Amino acid sequence: MPRIHFHQQLDELRARLLAMAALAQQNLECVLDAYRTSNLGLCEHVMDNEQAINRSEREVDELAYDLLAMEQPMAIDLRFILAVIKINGDLERIGDQCVNIADRVRLLHGESRVELPIDIERMGEISGNMIRGAIQSLMEADAFLAASILGMDDQVDDMNRDAYTSLMSLMMNDPEAAPHALNALIICRNLERIADHATNIAEDVIFWVRGADIRHGVTVVLD
Amino acid sequence: MPRIHFHQQLDELRARLLAMAALAQQNLECVLDAYRTSNLGLCEHVMDNEQAINRSEREVDELAYDLLAMEQPMAIDLRFILAVIKINGDLERIGDQCVNIADRVRLLHGESRVELPIDIERMGEISGNMIRGAIQSLMEADAFLAASILGMDDQVDDMNRDAYTSLMSLMMNDPEAAPHALNALIICRNLERIADHATNIAEDVIFWVRGADIRHGVTVVLD
Repeated sequence: MPRIHFHQQLDELRARLLAMAALAQQNLECVLDAYRTSNLGLCEHVMDNEQAINRSEREVDELAYDLLAMEQPMAIDLRFILAVIKINGDLERIGDQCVNIADRVRLLHGESRVELPIDIERMGEISGNMIRGAIQSLMEADAFLAASILGMDDQVDDMNRDAYTSLMSLMMNDPEAAPHALNALIICRNLERIADHATNIAEDVIFWVRGADIRHGVTVVLD
Repeated sequence: MPRIHFHQQLDELRARLLAMAALAQQNLECVLDAYRTSNLGLCEHVMDNEQAINRSEREVDELAYDLLAMEQPMAIDLRFILAVIKINGDLERIGDQCVNIADRVRLLHGESRVELPIDIERMGEISGNMIRGAIQSLMEADAFLAASILGMDDQVDDMNRDAYTSLMSLMMNDPEAAPHALNALIICRNLERIADHATNIAEDVIFWVRGADIRHGVTVVLD
């Protein structure tokens, strides 16, 4: 009986984390829309979602702590709970980064927009795909899918570096464009960080599914 | 007997985390010196230390996992191990941020320096004090000291915001200063993030010692 209860609680933990992941993913889509359409209402929505994400973070951490304290989870269950604790932190940080982007969208609202030599939408799309893939790998316990996320990070890093170079040139040639360019540059850095968090989540899924024992050179047969 | 062994392992975990914390703290001091003196040799040192920090992160995580898997830590011991896992992640991120700053120092090396309307040294000093205080609170299990760190974050946030405004004005008025100003702006953002990680560490110390989750300005007492 207690084991049944334990597995129900593990399911509950998983469900809560996935709900939080959905919020974080929605927030990224929302703030990218807000940037594209300069919609301050969407920025408000991002702020509200952030509050919900913060509440979720506490609840998920509490539930994970209770499970560790009350039960004696072993092997894959223990790894799952530890992965949840880390993923929880990454999702909360993604929420923060979306708020940072929303702040920039609000600042941009008052400024005249200039044509920028960067593709924020594409960068946002890749980061969004990374989060989506990382969460799917979590839902399906799919370490192969998780591993495929890892390489995508380089693309976002490259785009961020290119954005830096081209926005700096723009600022030197057209100082009036500085406010817009600088806000865009910070948005790019936040997207790059979001991609990093997606990478972290994918790594935690691999840790959970394939096992920490891989680090000790032992093959673990999973059930 | 097993309990004696368990406590020895907890001490070992604590010692490793503190050694890693010392490396992270040293890296911040080192990179601030590198910025002040434009010393590329110090940047190399920061890169080497970063490798050591990454190795430590893996080792600390493994030891924490083994302790959770082999023993059934309860209450304060369980909270300690969970705090260690989180602090471990924050220290690793501080290492990353120091590397980001070192990258900027290297880029600045080729550029002509201009007088900047910001005080990076002071910002670095406060962030350094925050890390030092957070680590001391960890060494001494001192939740009061940890709580005193939390408020210091606002000061660094304010300095970062002011830096943004004044560096943007500078770039608009003196486009030639853009490369230096932009690198300085990114250094400020990294210092602001380091202060955030020090805050996280202090929160984790409070969680460990008092059994309370105080993130996001809400107090939740666990047991």
